Amino acid sequence: MTHSSRRARLSAEICAADLDAMLVTDLINVRYLSGFTGSAGALLVYADDRPAVLATDGRYRTQAARQAPDLQVAIERSGPRHLVTQAAAAGARRIGFEAHVVTVDGFDALSAALCGVDDAVELVRASNTVEALREVKDAGEVALLRLACEAADAALSDLVERGGLRPGRTEREVRRELEALMLDHGAEAASFETIVAAGPNSAIPHHRPTDAVLAAGDFVKIDFGALVAGYHSDMTRTFVLGPPADWQREIYQVVRAAQRAGREALQPGADLRAVDAAARTVIAEAGYAETFGHGLGHGVGLRIHEAPGINAAADGTLLAGAVVTVEPGVYLADRGGVRIEDTLVVADTAGQAPDLLTRFPKELTIL
Amino acid sequence: MTHSSRRARLSAEICAADLDAMLVTDLINVRYLSGFTGSAGALLVYADDRPAVLATDGRYRTQAARQAPDLQVAIERSGPRHLVTQAAAAGARRIGFEAHVVTVDGFDALSAALCGVDDAVELVRASNTVEALREVKDAGEVALLRLACEAADAALSDLVERGGLRPGRTEREVRRELEALMLDHGAEAASFETIVAAGPNSAIPHHRPTDAVLAAGDFVKIDFGALVAGYHSDMTRTFVLGPPADWQREIYQVVRAAQRAGREALQPGADLRAVDAAARTVIAEAGYAETFGHGLGHGVGLRIHEAPGINAAADGTLLAGAVVTVEPGVYLADRGGVRIEDTLVVADTAGQAPDLLTRFPKELTIL
Repeated sequence: MTHSSRRARLSAEICAADLDAMLVTDLINVRYLSGFTGSAGALLVYADDRPAVLATDGRYRTQAARQAPDLQVAIERSGPRHLVTQAAAAGARRIGFEAHVVTVDGFDALSAALCGVDDAVELVRASNTVEALREVKDAGEVALLRLACEAADAALSDLVERGGLRPGRTEREVRRELEALMLDHGAEAASFETIVAAGPNSAIPHHRPTDAVLAAGDFVKIDFGALVAGYHSDMTRTFVLGPPADWQREIYQVVRAAQRAGREALQPGADLRAVDAAARTVIAEAGYAETFGHGLGHGVGLRIHEAPGINAAADGTLLAGAVVTVEPGVYLADRGGVRIEDTLVVADTAGQAPDLLTRFPKELTIL
Repeated sequence: MTHSSRRARLSAEICAADLDAMLVTDLINVRYLSGFTGSAGALLVYADDRPAVLATDGRYRTQAARQAPDLQVAIERSGPRHLVTQAAAAGARRIGFEAHVVTVDGFDALSAALCGVDDAVELVRASNTVEALREVKDAGEVALLRLACEAADAALSDLVERGGLRPGRTEREVRRELEALMLDHGAEAASFETIVAAGPNSAIPHHRPTDAVLAAGDFVKIDFGALVAGYHSDMTRTFVLGPPADWQREIYQVVRAAQRAGREALQPGADLRAVDAAARTVIAEAGYAETFGHGLGHGVGLRIHEAPGINAAADGTLLAGAVVTVEPGVYLADRGGVRIEDTLVVADTAGQAPDLLTRFPKELTIL
């Protein structure tokens, strides 16, 4: 039901681009449009209301029938070639393809397959067509993102509650415990490699957990997420182990104010650069402009990073119903850093606050 | 040292293909040739002894200098475009690229970058050039694969020793414990999503663990591996919970005999199809031909699946020093299945047995 309405939206895009059909080969896009989660598959969607065709291999015969009962399923080893020749045989003349996904070799193979069939058929670049649809989440997607964020919230609460963040433990130990707790709370996996960064390591924006030992006085920065039914949550919290030094309290409050400003700027129709600037200005005015070297946020959904990017070089505006992160940071090399990140749903109407999916508190928590 | 000798081998291939340089954009290939493990990077290797250039972005400035100290590093957001224009400026006329990796959009961008520079420069398809080099493992790679296989062996031993495989547990619980044990034994992660398949689920070749409960009399099939420094191990063992039924004993012994035949056929220079047939024939002669629907094995290294494929449709021969799996199976729908899989290093000289890296016993273990 949901999948068929997504395909109907794609058909409208295909039609608007003056195409007769479109070949979808990105597996995430195939999943989005069909529900099929196998590791091999391609989808053909027509501009009109002819049923879409899913091609996959023999391993997935049963799974495809179960996950995509409303689709025609073709069991073919060379799925994309089969689909474009089938489209050509059905009269399609202009067939879109995902030029940001199909490799040069893959394109050569498609061209060769069509060459024998009909020289009037044209393969037309149609990059990021499905990704653009995915930018706005439907109700089913928001429900799954909410579950993913809840699993992460619950796991972090448990971790803190049971004293999992204490001097003497290693970053790796904390990571393992947090990831296990997410599974306990219904995650199918971590949504990306959990970042646990203690002390000076917290100044490294994307630190990989090591055997570094948490020590009194450290910042502990944790950036993590849960995966639920293919949807990713993304949240960062930074704690301090014991009474904070003045510089720690200062940068925490700067980042917290910047993050609030970023969240408040998340209005449907807002310029993406202006959202980034709303948070960045707070950090710059506190004198830390040079220490915030990454973008403010990104879309999140079936991929951990997807459209829109919210940064100083972004183009375009924020769409109602987009799900994005807001994650400013201040990083003082060799001392420590703070990042605070939420995942939020942009409201439907201007003036309405975004829906906060990651609800773990953001007050400076002294452990 | 190792990386520079790998690049020297690639330079010889580049030269033999009448190219002046080659752009490497597959990140695994970049890692193989340079040691760099960042999530964004591209490498330019010349046919002659000019130093290779690694392009990456600002996040990886420090890491690139540390991991690839013998390379020139260019910090560029559009790395591949930068590298081909630099190669053209240095006089390269025929530049190879990975046509199985570069997308149509990526190729358009490279062409556009060169268009302004020099119309005499040609981008030449050079697919799978580095993958072919990677098929034969060097000593450093075998050492890491051995460590990965040892971590998996030790984890499975611990799991069995502590009674982790017993009626009443779920497939998911077993998976979690086994993956945690691999981390205890030095793995950085599981090398792929662990398969734990109990009872009738063991008849599904690539089953994902569920909340299905292990029961007395079940087969429990476990296919898993450890990741160590980027190298993957791959092993399958099948246990039976309590005294086996006759049909269980029978198919176990068939698969075990087939697996032994496959291992014995792993000779340098052997025809890949003949290796597959050596195991498949044993299964067919026992009357189970229809139940073994996948290939016998595959190469394993920086990817869990790489060249060579060992199956009925394979072309070519087994190379000395290749590291491959041997994994026949018999799957009886709705009853249960058995797969036994090892990872082995093909010997240097004919008549010599392959080096077995996965050493967990293969006798039918009754738990």
